Amino acid sequence: MLTVFGSVALDTIRTPSRIIKNVLGGAATFAAISASFFTKPSLIAVVGHDFPRKYQNVLNSFVDATGIVHAKGKTFRYDGSYDNTLSFRTTNKTELNVLRDFKPIVPEKYRKSEFVYLANNDPSQNARIIKEFDKVKFSMCDTIDFWISTKRNDVIKMMGVVDSVVINDEEAKMLTKTHNLIKAARKIMEWGTKYVIIKKGEHGSLLFYDDIVFPSPAFSLENIVDPTGAGDSFAGGMIGYLASKNSTKLSTIKEAAVYGNVMGSFAVERYGIHGLVGLKKSHIQKRFKRYRQMVHF
Amino acid sequence: MLTVFGSVALDTIRTPSRIIKNVLGGAATFAAISASFFTKPSLIAVVGHDFPRKYQNVLNSFVDATGIVHAKGKTFRYDGSYDNTLSFRTTNKTELNVLRDFKPIVPEKYRKSEFVYLANNDPSQNARIIKEFDKVKFSMCDTIDFWISTKRNDVIKMMGVVDSVVINDEEAKMLTKTHNLIKAARKIMEWGTKYVIIKKGEHGSLLFYDDIVFPSPAFSLENIVDPTGAGDSFAGGMIGYLASKNSTKLSTIKEAAVYGNVMGSFAVERYGIHGLVGLKKSHIQKRFKRYRQMVHF
Repeated sequence: MLTVFGSVALDTIRTPSRIIKNVLGGAATFAAISASFFTKPSLIAVVGHDFPRKYQNVLNSFVDATGIVHAKGKTFRYDGSYDNTLSFRTTNKTELNVLRDFKPIVPEKYRKSEFVYLANNDPSQNARIIKEFDKVKFSMCDTIDFWISTKRNDVIKMMGVVDSVVINDEEAKMLTKTHNLIKAARKIMEWGTKYVIIKKGEHGSLLFYDDIVFPSPAFSLENIVDPTGAGDSFAGGMIGYLASKNSTKLSTIKEAAVYGNVMGSFAVERYGIHGLVGLKKSHIQKRFKRYRQMVHF
Repeated sequence: MLTVFGSVALDTIRTPSRIIKNVLGGAATFAAISASFFTKPSLIAVVGHDFPRKYQNVLNSFVDATGIVHAKGKTFRYDGSYDNTLSFRTTNKTELNVLRDFKPIVPEKYRKSEFVYLANNDPSQNARIIKEFDKVKFSMCDTIDFWISTKRNDVIKMMGVVDSVVINDEEAKMLTKTHNLIKAARKIMEWGTKYVIIKKGEHGSLLFYDDIVFPSPAFSLENIVDPTGAGDSFAGGMIGYLASKNSTKLSTIKEAAVYGNVMGSFAVERYGIHGLVGLKKSHIQKRFKRYRQMVHF
């Protein structure tokens, strides 16, 4: 069983070719939908009174939504713009709304989850909630620059209580104050986590465990329309695959990182969640197989 | 047989931790020394009267130096500084010196070379010199931002008369005026070359042929001291391996790209050419084998 804790949002995304307004987004949304192609995830999140019925239906069709709290107030909203290269995003506005005072509780039936993904939430909240699970076999967290700059010590503590950390390359450098990603990963592992996965966008990912580095290039794509949620889809695909195998063997974790890349590659091909929601399991298997052929030499 | 045509230089390299002055460098130097671990390359280059005897001896020990012209004047000199991340280089000074009026000629005994590497020289010179070889089986060229901004049309023409192009990611984007590397490679292939290899520094490389993409992550390194010559070492290792196999099969070209990555990884571990000159063939084989294990899943 997999539980995902994180944000469900109404996103406004501005790319050079298109603007989409108040669409279903959020780290947990992408991660949970991505994971759902491997196992049915349970979601812990909060939405407001303005959260559209149609988006609730979308979530219901992919996840166990028992853990979604409907609070008074407006749903968390994010507004961001990409540059021409789609590599850099500027935040125009973040409205925390119901997220501000959310006190997440793990529903009784989620407590037996063996796999837990803590998205880029408040690190002290992540560190607290992981204790509410009874028999975690594999936990994973992410973080973002906002927490690194405002709560660095809590981020470091959080990384000591999870089995694995997924993090963007730039954020890994910022957090560890080093330019070399191997040194950065080593430092994060010193804080207590066993696995570090550094996401490098179009350059794929690096998985670290002990003295082992497993680089996994991105699935090559010619047409990228919206990078939003790619990293969350990566993490969701990765832990979803692990949960479906109920395994934490290194060889399975390597495969999971490749599935993470594959899910990230689907996410960026359409706007918002549309790269994921139309997928079939067979598309994913096919791309995983093509990936294996692609990197073979 | 492999011939390398390009610059031999006296480099001044300034990194945050060390400055080395007037040391043996240049694109052809790195490429030819790198290639020499696979096959004995013939070198076409020019040096000045100030070129130290000890550097001539270094070259003699790795290459057939018949094609090195000793001209009146000073050797080509380059002076560059790296930033703290070792990712960005600023050119402080370029003195063309003897390179300015060099009219390269392919020595008689080099004309039967089946493998030819044209480093980042003047593109029209590269396009002219390739015709002087009698039976080229596989040619490869590189280019740099200077030629792209001053002689873009000649760069494009050159890419139509070689079998393969190796180029940095940023230069590929600049040349093709696109942000997506797959689109960039496709455009370069439309100009006539069959293979495109985009070098991405710490992120490895992408090899393109027809509809095939072969991504090859970089060999992961914790300690990088001087990136100078990494790309040239990549190209030299790649074409040196191909020449040693006397093969242009796609599977061999993929292996060659991995050898390119391996040679680039050695180059950056020491200052100047010292990452290469102390190598033994067994070090290279061992790293190639470790590379294969590293990327396996």
